[in-house]
Amino acid sequence: MDDIGAGERAAIERIRGVLPAPPRHETWIGDDAAAVAPPASGPLLLAADLVVEGVHADLALVGLDDLGWKALAVNVSDVAAMGGRPLHALVCVAGPPDTDLDLLYAGIAAAAEEYRCAVVGGDLSNAASLTVAVAVTGECPGGRPVLRSGARPGDALLVTGPLGRSAAGLAALHSPDRQAKAYAEYVEAYRRPRARVAEGMVAAATGATAMIDVSDGLAADVRNLAAASGIGVDLHNVAADPGWPVSEEDALFGGEDYELLFATPDVDVTTEGFVTEGLRPPIVIGHCTNDPSQRLLRGEPLPVGGWVHRFEPRGQGPT
Amino acid sequence: MDDIGAGERAAIERIRGVLPAPPRHETWIGDDAAAVAPPASGPLLLAADLVVEGVHADLALVGLDDLGWKALAVNVSDVAAMGGRPLHALVCVAGPPDTDLDLLYAGIAAAAEEYRCAVVGGDLSNAASLTVAVAVTGECPGGRPVLRSGARPGDALLVTGPLGRSAAGLAALHSPDRQAKAYAEYVEAYRRPRARVAEGMVAAATGATAMIDVSDGLAADVRNLAAASGIGVDLHNVAADPGWPVSEEDALFGGEDYELLFATPDVDVTTEGFVTEGLRPPIVIGHCTNDPSQRLLRGEPLPVGGWVHRFEPRGQGPT
Repeated sequence: MDDIGAGERAAIERIRGVLPAPPRHETWIGDDAAAVAPPASGPLLLAADLVVEGVHADLALVGLDDLGWKALAVNVSDVAAMGGRPLHALVCVAGPPDTDLDLLYAGIAAAAEEYRCAVVGGDLSNAASLTVAVAVTGECPGGRPVLRSGARPGDALLVTGPLGRSAAGLAALHSPDRQAKAYAEYVEAYRRPRARVAEGMVAAATGATAMIDVSDGLAADVRNLAAASGIGVDLHNVAADPGWPVSEEDALFGGEDYELLFATPDVDVTTEGFVTEGLRPPIVIGHCTNDPSQRLLRGEPLPVGGWVHRFEPRGQGPT
Repeated sequence: MDDIGAGERAAIERIRGVLPAPPRHETWIGDDAAAVAPPASGPLLLAADLVVEGVHADLALVGLDDLGWKALAVNVSDVAAMGGRPLHALVCVAGPPDTDLDLLYAGIAAAAEEYRCAVVGGDLSNAASLTVAVAVTGECPGGRPVLRSGARPGDALLVTGPLGRSAAGLAALHSPDRQAKAYAEYVEAYRRPRARVAEGMVAAATGATAMIDVSDGLAADVRNLAAASGIGVDLHNVAADPGWPVSEEDALFGGEDYELLFATPDVDVTTEGFVTEGLRPPIVIGHCTNDPSQRLLRGEPLPVGGWVHRFEPRGQGPT
């Protein structure tokens, strides 16, 4: 082995060791680029998301493996929100030389296995602080992606599961009795968010007209969907998790639940589709209206807020 | 517009304004994921590379637009090194809130236009220092990618252009008379490296058995190709640019030239292919040998070294 770049090369070899090997006729990690089979039919889905230490993840509260899981899962969630399934991931890690890559990639590999999303390449670099940038490809089994912009007046609005769990978990990690068993499932929801791939595909197959993942809190993401579709929204429910540590504010503003929010004309058909696939039935939270400026929750103005976690000054909570 | 995430949303809208809009039936920036047409035939190429301020680019020497250009061009170069052409890019930017995104994206957009590589998505995040992670897709017009591993004993080794130009440009930027006109073309080679897409496609079409881009210096990258192919190399030439500021060390160890190094059985066929396409003929630098441990330059051991610019302690020069 050459003695230049030996640190990077050794790291790449260790990473290859924890990831599955490619099938014949595909090239994954180790060449200039990966060469893989494209989707057999329909469009190619592409998404990329950053996880930055101190912005999206606090390593005093979660492990590097959790950060790795999250970096992959949030990208898979973007593919799920189009009604797609993930195919490949490219993982770029910039961090201090003492970053525990084995631990980070243990989490990435676990998520890659869970979502059957092959890590086929990426890059490593030294940097003052840790940034993980993942890009994913995906395919649409239904042939057509579900955009944010297709909701129509009269469509029902549903979410694939209870909200606010991640925010409750984060609050529990900050609380003095953070080890309490009552919090465990919420802490897990925060540490290892789940991407709703099967749910997104069933929603698409049963007629979903618009879809988005709930990454910034329901209040923000239902606004994103409504604005893209040019419709109003009238909610009767925020689908807050019924567990005692979860508040309605957690559901509205907490973010990072990664359940899917979608609009669909026929709730019965959708629910039957979910049940047939062995999935938890989605929760109806309201419907779409004709007035594109309408944002209602139980007849009152839908509160404004959401977790600001991207290109903004650090440390802002709900605004 | 909602008042959460407004900074990010405004930034994304400005970015969309400097980039081309998608064709009908494609979704680019603004939804959970992009939905694009996959390659019509052959494999899907995927690559990702990081550019980290202070590691890969010194903003005291180059502009943010140059950094943006480079972040896209080095990814396109990875696709070129497979004999492919780029299709799409996803751009993730993590940086301080006062980062001049307009200037950064001006460079990204210029490279995207130059290489006909559509920026279809990405992410923005706050971070203490600037990291740009780009992922690209590509296709192989020849149907089959050219790997690093296919070179055979007897194949000639060629590069698509003179080397050491980028290193000479970097040295010029550090010199007191950095504005001297004599340096201008080398400074440009450092600031705005070119990806050799057309050259890579012709090399592939005319029988190239192995290919790599010269990103770490010829000494390192010819070793990478030789090790992957299990062959020896006997070089008579390092293809150093003949201009006076360029040394043989710049070619061997400088890195960042992004010319392509390839092995091919028939130099005449390859040269004719380049000339037919209006491209500068490639430079023969040596040939592949039977002894997989052989690394010769003009009968002496090929020097060891290269620009270490990735997952290594900062500030290392040639080792």
